[in-house]
Amino acid sequence: MSASTDITAARLIAVDWGTSRLRAWLLDANGAQLATASSDDGIGKLTGGHEQVFETLAAPWPKVPAIMAGMVGSRQGWREATYLPCPATAWSIGGKLARFATGTGREVAIVPGLAVRPPNRDGDVIRGEETQMIGLIDREPGFSGTVILPGTHSKWARIEAGAILDFQTFMTGELFELLSQKSFLRHSVAEGADDLSALPDFALAVERTLVEGLPFLGALFSVRARQLLAGVSRENNLAYLSGLIIGGEIAAARAMGSLPAGAGVRIVAAPSLLRAYTTALAIAGLKAEPRDGSELVLTGLRHLARAAGLLEQAS
Amino acid sequence: MSASTDITAARLIAVDWGTSRLRAWLLDANGAQLATASSDDGIGKLTGGHEQVFETLAAPWPKVPAIMAGMVGSRQGWREATYLPCPATAWSIGGKLARFATGTGREVAIVPGLAVRPPNRDGDVIRGEETQMIGLIDREPGFSGTVILPGTHSKWARIEAGAILDFQTFMTGELFELLSQKSFLRHSVAEGADDLSALPDFALAVERTLVEGLPFLGALFSVRARQLLAGVSRENNLAYLSGLIIGGEIAAARAMGSLPAGAGVRIVAAPSLLRAYTTALAIAGLKAEPRDGSELVLTGLRHLARAAGLLEQAS
Repeated sequence: MSASTDITAARLIAVDWGTSRLRAWLLDANGAQLATASSDDGIGKLTGGHEQVFETLAAPWPKVPAIMAGMVGSRQGWREATYLPCPATAWSIGGKLARFATGTGREVAIVPGLAVRPPNRDGDVIRGEETQMIGLIDREPGFSGTVILPGTHSKWARIEAGAILDFQTFMTGELFELLSQKSFLRHSVAEGADDLSALPDFALAVERTLVEGLPFLGALFSVRARQLLAGVSRENNLAYLSGLIIGGEIAAARAMGSLPAGAGVRIVAAPSLLRAYTTALAIAGLKAEPRDGSELVLTGLRHLARAAGLLEQAS
Repeated sequence: MSASTDITAARLIAVDWGTSRLRAWLLDANGAQLATASSDDGIGKLTGGHEQVFETLAAPWPKVPAIMAGMVGSRQGWREATYLPCPATAWSIGGKLARFATGTGREVAIVPGLAVRPPNRDGDVIRGEETQMIGLIDREPGFSGTVILPGTHSKWARIEAGAILDFQTFMTGELFELLSQKSFLRHSVAEGADDLSALPDFALAVERTLVEGLPFLGALFSVRARQLLAGVSRENNLAYLSGLIIGGEIAAARAMGSLPAGAGVRIVAAPSLLRAYTTALAIAGLKAEPRDGSELVLTGLRHLARAAGLLEQAS
């Protein structure tokens, strides 16, 4: 925002405070953006002092209430905001924000996570992505289908009639990191590569997984054998490993009913992951429309703030 | 062996030199055991000096030839013994030992690993377990079926008419270690437990995997949700994680044809792993007969030594 913006019209600070980063938007009563700020003080590196970190970042701004989403509401965060049950809507979530006033009189409202506890499954939890999904619901109120949010812990969620019905977590990004960097396979793959899904063996691994039904646990060690016996390059082998894991995620999601036939698919991911998932989903016969995660989280925070009476209702 | 054994009858030293340990048996011309020695100088901790480590261990014994199996023959070992193709027999392996004389005139013969390179798969490699399988073949020449060798990298091999036909590797033990100790799931499981397969959720996880077909990648994060939402104890949750991985190994082996119907199954494992696999295999409707791995490796080394002319033929 330019310096000429009148920040005295500020009504609310919307905050996305995740494991590795904090982003804040100063909003007026209609939710229009007046200023932004960010810092690297993610929840993952803090062991307290959340109030001070936030007040330092927000010091140049008027002292208005704040709404926050992400790991800030976890047990390791500033204030725990417990998990709400699904189905969940903007209204059920907005009515259950964890609200408190700080010692210096700032009003803070933290968005709770979501939990599913199906009778015959173990259940699952989400924290942060619910706000992006609420943003998606705000943008596309008529959307019914699956939202995929790839990452360290990928989430697949089903949305219908403005409600988050169910979701499931896959440890895709974390598994890729562990296997490529900490396992015995690290000797057989490159340390990194620019665009893995552009290398030919990414699609090969996805095809073997999704088309031929190669089981993930049975395929894993072949990464070693490919390098040892077939002389596959380490870059291409890293792409193969990535394809096994992302293909395995899609195969598992399909097997577990996270992909109802005929419903739409949205995907929320940064560019390189987006390319990889688009390639892999196409092999599964699926076309996912991309959505911008950063835009969705702000939209979601606005929507929840309105539901909670922290901003005026949209006209 | 008692001190009164006459070690001047020694003809050969049989050596099992793996990643974490070195064990040596002094044998007479008939393969009878005269003395044993062992050390913790596994290949994994050495960056050279293999000859000195071995000569120090063998110093009290007559200077006879040595036959060695295990990681000692890997690129990181003393002398690389390349991978032989399958099908492999005691004679095909025994005829291709990597033989050399040390600077001090000791004759050393290292057992090669095995490789499979099927036309439509990536192939696989084995090093060390081939010697146990040759030991099994020596003990049970008529055996046809599957041999399971669980561990850091579990091996499933098919044996028929005295030959090792095919095998497949699963990274079961390594995955369990990475997931329980290095992943986000470490917060949801105990650091260890005495007998995981005796805890109720081990069998539960195996049943969900093998009977209900729960995919491994789709089940993994539930370890977190079970502790967070259902209050499962960390010990029982560690057992559940173990059950997901071992059950997943068996499911993948079954899907990939490593378990021909009607054939026998042998399992070579230490007691605690043996209990876990026996429990899991029973859920898959399989009964595996246990065999002692340490005994098999010595039997295998003897058999290979005879095939290579390093010991007299058994009468």
